[in-house]
Amino acid sequence: MFKAIGLALAGLLFVGTPVAADDVAAVASPSDVLAVELKAEKGVLQYRVTRFGEPVVDWSKLAIALKGAPTLGAGATIAKTATRSEDDTWDLPWGERSRVRNHFNELTATVADKGGRTFDVVFRVYDDGLGFRYDVPKQDALAEALIRDEETEFRFAEPATTWWIEARLPNRYEYIYKTTPLEAVTMAHTPITMRTEDGLHISIHEAALVDYSGMSVRRTKGRAFKADLAPSSEKGVLVRGATPFVTPWRTLMISDTAGGLVESDLVLNLNEPNKLGDVSWVEPGKYVGIWWGMHLGVESWESGPIHGANTKNTMRYIDFAAENGFKGVLVEGWNIGWDGDWVQNGDLFDFTKAYPDYDIEKLAAYALSKGVRLVAHNETSGNIANYEDQMAAAYAMYERLGIRQIKTGYVADAGHIKARGADGKMHLEYHDGQVTQRHHIKVLEEAAKHRLSINSHEPVKDTGLRRTYPNWISREGARGQEYNAWGTPPNPPEHVAVLPFTRMLSGPMDYTPGIFDLTFNYEKTNGNRPQSTLAQQLAHYVVIYSPIQMVADLPENYGKHPDAFRFIKDVVTDWDETKVLNAEIGDYVTIARKAKGSGEWFLGSLTDEEGRMLSVPLSFLTPGTRYRAEIYRDGDKAHWDTAPYDFVREEKTVTSADTLTLRLAAGGGQAIRFLPQP
Amino acid sequence: MFKAIGLALAGLLFVGTPVAADDVAAVASPSDVLAVELKAEKGVLQYRVTRFGEPVVDWSKLAIALKGAPTLGAGATIAKTATRSEDDTWDLPWGERSRVRNHFNELTATVADKGGRTFDVVFRVYDDGLGFRYDVPKQDALAEALIRDEETEFRFAEPATTWWIEARLPNRYEYIYKTTPLEAVTMAHTPITMRTEDGLHISIHEAALVDYSGMSVRRTKGRAFKADLAPSSEKGVLVRGATPFVTPWRTLMISDTAGGLVESDLVLNLNEPNKLGDVSWVEPGKYVGIWWGMHLGVESWESGPIHGANTKNTMRYIDFAAENGFKGVLVEGWNIGWDGDWVQNGDLFDFTKAYPDYDIEKLAAYALSKGVRLVAHNETSGNIANYEDQMAAAYAMYERLGIRQIKTGYVADAGHIKARGADGKMHLEYHDGQVTQRHHIKVLEEAAKHRLSINSHEPVKDTGLRRTYPNWISREGARGQEYNAWGTPPNPPEHVAVLPFTRMLSGPMDYTPGIFDLTFNYEKTNGNRPQSTLAQQLAHYVVIYSPIQMVADLPENYGKHPDAFRFIKDVVTDWDETKVLNAEIGDYVTIARKAKGSGEWFLGSLTDEEGRMLSVPLSFLTPGTRYRAEIYRDGDKAHWDTAPYDFVREEKTVTSADTLTLRLAAGGGQAIRFLPQP
Repeated sequence: MFKAIGLALAGLLFVGTPVAADDVAAVASPSDVLAVELKAEKGVLQYRVTRFGEPVVDWSKLAIALKGAPTLGAGATIAKTATRSEDDTWDLPWGERSRVRNHFNELTATVADKGGRTFDVVFRVYDDGLGFRYDVPKQDALAEALIRDEETEFRFAEPATTWWIEARLPNRYEYIYKTTPLEAVTMAHTPITMRTEDGLHISIHEAALVDYSGMSVRRTKGRAFKADLAPSSEKGVLVRGATPFVTPWRTLMISDTAGGLVESDLVLNLNEPNKLGDVSWVEPGKYVGIWWGMHLGVESWESGPIHGANTKNTMRYIDFAAENGFKGVLVEGWNIGWDGDWVQNGDLFDFTKAYPDYDIEKLAAYALSKGVRLVAHNETSGNIANYEDQMAAAYAMYERLGIRQIKTGYVADAGHIKARGADGKMHLEYHDGQVTQRHHIKVLEEAAKHRLSINSHEPVKDTGLRRTYPNWISREGARGQEYNAWGTPPNPPEHVAVLPFTRMLSGPMDYTPGIFDLTFNYEKTNGNRPQSTLAQQLAHYVVIYSPIQMVADLPENYGKHPDAFRFIKDVVTDWDETKVLNAEIGDYVTIARKAKGSGEWFLGSLTDEEGRMLSVPLSFLTPGTRYRAEIYRDGDKAHWDTAPYDFVREEKTVTSADTLTLRLAAGGGQAIRFLPQP
Repeated sequence: MFKAIGLALAGLLFVGTPVAADDVAAVASPSDVLAVELKAEKGVLQYRVTRFGEPVVDWSKLAIALKGAPTLGAGATIAKTATRSEDDTWDLPWGERSRVRNHFNELTATVADKGGRTFDVVFRVYDDGLGFRYDVPKQDALAEALIRDEETEFRFAEPATTWWIEARLPNRYEYIYKTTPLEAVTMAHTPITMRTEDGLHISIHEAALVDYSGMSVRRTKGRAFKADLAPSSEKGVLVRGATPFVTPWRTLMISDTAGGLVESDLVLNLNEPNKLGDVSWVEPGKYVGIWWGMHLGVESWESGPIHGANTKNTMRYIDFAAENGFKGVLVEGWNIGWDGDWVQNGDLFDFTKAYPDYDIEKLAAYALSKGVRLVAHNETSGNIANYEDQMAAAYAMYERLGIRQIKTGYVADAGHIKARGADGKMHLEYHDGQVTQRHHIKVLEEAAKHRLSINSHEPVKDTGLRRTYPNWISREGARGQEYNAWGTPPNPPEHVAVLPFTRMLSGPMDYTPGIFDLTFNYEKTNGNRPQSTLAQQLAHYVVIYSPIQMVADLPENYGKHPDAFRFIKDVVTDWDETKVLNAEIGDYVTIARKAKGSGEWFLGSLTDEEGRMLSVPLSFLTPGTRYRAEIYRDGDKAHWDTAPYDFVREEKTVTSADTLTLRLAAGGGQAIRFLPQP
């Protein structure tokens, strides 16, 4: 390996400013696609990323500013370097695929700084991206580490079109993505994704965010960005740590194609293996719920005449789930605390006490008798202190009731998470701050004791921790379907063509697809409704990955389109393989996934406000096998705005040698199930 | 059909300005992807193009300005409309595929104008594009038609990145493509290709340019363009016609993907069928030639000490061709006329008289004895009068010598074609003007009598006439390999990643690939050399389609890379099928083609100045068959600039179920031959 690294370095010196070779450490990816160089020039530790010899990230600083101590890395020298390679494969209990290859070359540089401290910078370089982190050993010169700023830079070499949402706004991650030049970005949440003029696709994110504050990226000048850690209630301290510690991995996915980003396992590979042992109790599947009615305003979370969470209504949902093979029934508004201003008064939520019209014991038993489980709902309004106080008792109760899954909620403006500090007082924190991140881990660990999985809404962003905690089964963290009920504006058709290349690069999303009444609010001012065709709602089940998928509309609306509903009944939510067949960010995407432990494949394709004709070779199918393709497509006159219900279900016999032409209407989509034939 | 058209119209009325339905005629493509509407509003005839209900071309004018008569179409009313559909398949004697499907809906609108004239506008609408033309019947009110301006407009609805070359510049079509916003285009040759912000790919061109002047497009304002016909020596008359006549088809290819443009057969479909009958004497294949030495300056066209076209040198090339299975030997500079300023003195060229040191009779016989044919070379310097005078005699001589192919040349600045007018005097014309276009047809018809095929350099652009005249076997019409010898600058790496989506949409190009000495001029000021790796030179044989492909370097240079040379020996030039596996304009392209009448496939992939990792499913292969893949790829350190010769040849066994990862270096490429195994 050392020789290969030397060769990579020799080649790289032709590009950019020459430096004395002995000041630069370098490592190349397994197929010599990417290379990282590291140097300490005039005491400034810097890295650079090239791809096929061309710069992707120009020399960018690495340092961490501390409170009450000199900046870690100021006056740096590289004391020693070491390299190693790894190529192995590991199993996912659930996911987009069942086996993941982890193949990288690693460079570890041990840095000494003028503050007398030492730390490692570790780069893992894959052919499709890289991650790096600071690894700070226990040392007398730095016992406590109070981080006031992470100075890590990302100086992008090329202009790029960028898809991004602004960080630090009240609605957390729930915004429509902007499409701007890289130079117009201000401060962005990650993943932030760009496409250079030369067609290179790059996404910045982080992996394994543990006991640290989430990273956004702030543009400082031109195409230069720096890490911007989420704020904390402790003045001047964004992360409170002690040596030894490691930072999360700062990640760059880099691919020639938009689909290459989606297929990358970089973020999962950089997380620690499963800590929970046997997780056979984590149950992927579909669920229904008392939820959409509240968003439409025809039911309520709070008690009263239209309280959705009543025993009769829930039994109806249990019956609906059982009849159609769905495994979960979520009931929001079941527990005391929703009356009054619940967003402000999260401390009033009681996570074990049901409203009187909701007989949870009876319902849980009824559900189990029908082969269905209740899904608990724990809205906290961001009061994590109140939630942590009740968590153990609540989880024990849920376990006893046969519940396997909790949808948690943290509805509060950014910066309004209520947490109890070390001083015993309440402090306001960020959804992506260190304190909240710690809370989520506490929740997962407590939940695991009770064989419960967590689906967090208004969460901290996903950084691949589902590998380490496989009971973190899904989360929200983006503008979901509910904005189509009341958002101003509703999600534009482009939204679902941007999500796969931004939010979804971080992990599963509980988007809550499958709205069949597409015109409920058609004449109101905002034009609120899903801006999609019926066929596209089906495609979401394949395109927008989550191991749990809601069947989100009111049961009565499915009866109006039984042909389309068949797809939702048939589609699965756990996969052995995933392939992106075509994709352009913000335009269209087609994904094929192989059902877990089965020979079936499912395909989902969707487009933005432009119709598409996409040619799709079926080469992902097993050669020599004949498949029945059950095709759910837009009708010839379909258009999200004028004819959303124009829809055709048809069947064809196909093989891996066939090519299908997918005709997607404006705002349309297509979903296909491929069943092997005997 | 009529009903379907009515439905299309009803749907379309939701978009844009409503008009009274009886003023608008409309037609949709077979799968309702594209629709064209036509109206005569306040006497202005206009058309519009939508795709999935969204505008692609806004209302754009149709009219032809005449000399000495009112504008054709001014004060228009639509007198009647008719529609018809066609779906058939026809055979190509040679081409990118052997069978072509022609599936369109057609709208014919008969227009009466206030000048008392009548004409038809005919639209043929395919799912992947459309063509329209004016069809003017014989009529007393318009016997002679002297066209002074074609006022056809193209008002594009969306902003777009555009790849284009400027029209009317001295070097004809031989320029590096510009990449600019659509709004920065001035006057462009066709094909001009764009990609909208929504990912729609559009290319404007024309089909069946016969007895008319070539069309460029001139931007008038914003995103609005108009037709701009090539100038003529006759003042105020760009086209001299008489009724009845038809204009060429104005074409718009429209696709979601860059590859969709390349796979479109629109332009061929809009040409007339083969007029020549049996064309078994048209011979696709590879050829070598005395040519590159002149461009490098080590040989000369003119007589003297380094005259390339001497008997001994030619025998060496015949031997080289015969040894390696190449079928043609081109010899430039063989005939009298090259001494002195030949660019100015085209009248001195004698097309039957060889230089004394070139024994053409002996060489032709020697070639035939070795199973090889001489390829004639007829440089005219644009003096088409002189060429037409000698053509019949020359072609008879070539036929007698067993020659089957002529490379013609029209080296003259734009506007400097010398033609004899009806007045018997010499006039200066354009390469793409009506007079020159007529000349090319004369050449083809005369050549066909002698079973000769024509490979025109400095030609009029291709508009698909190879369908009608299959002996128009190739042509130049873009910046070719010779610019790498002496161009300022040489072709940048991006050039070959732009050509497939611009120039190549018109038809085959004699790019003259296969230069193996990649560093001949490395230290001179311009850095002249092919800016590619060795592997990319091989990929050109598959990517840059031509039924005749030159093996362009000096024979001695192939001996230095026998491993790479094997691919050139093995690759064919005529195909049953063509598939674009991935593509982004100006970035990269991968094309697979099935060898004519054989089970073999060839793949070519190339990239611009950025290296690429491209994932390519081999689903184009026949399922169940094992293939030996002979892979010619960039080595791990390859880079067009620093390591162009780093090259690997390797073999693998693959099937249609496999996916290959193509690793292309910066300026690199890959070529693969797939041989079915028993």
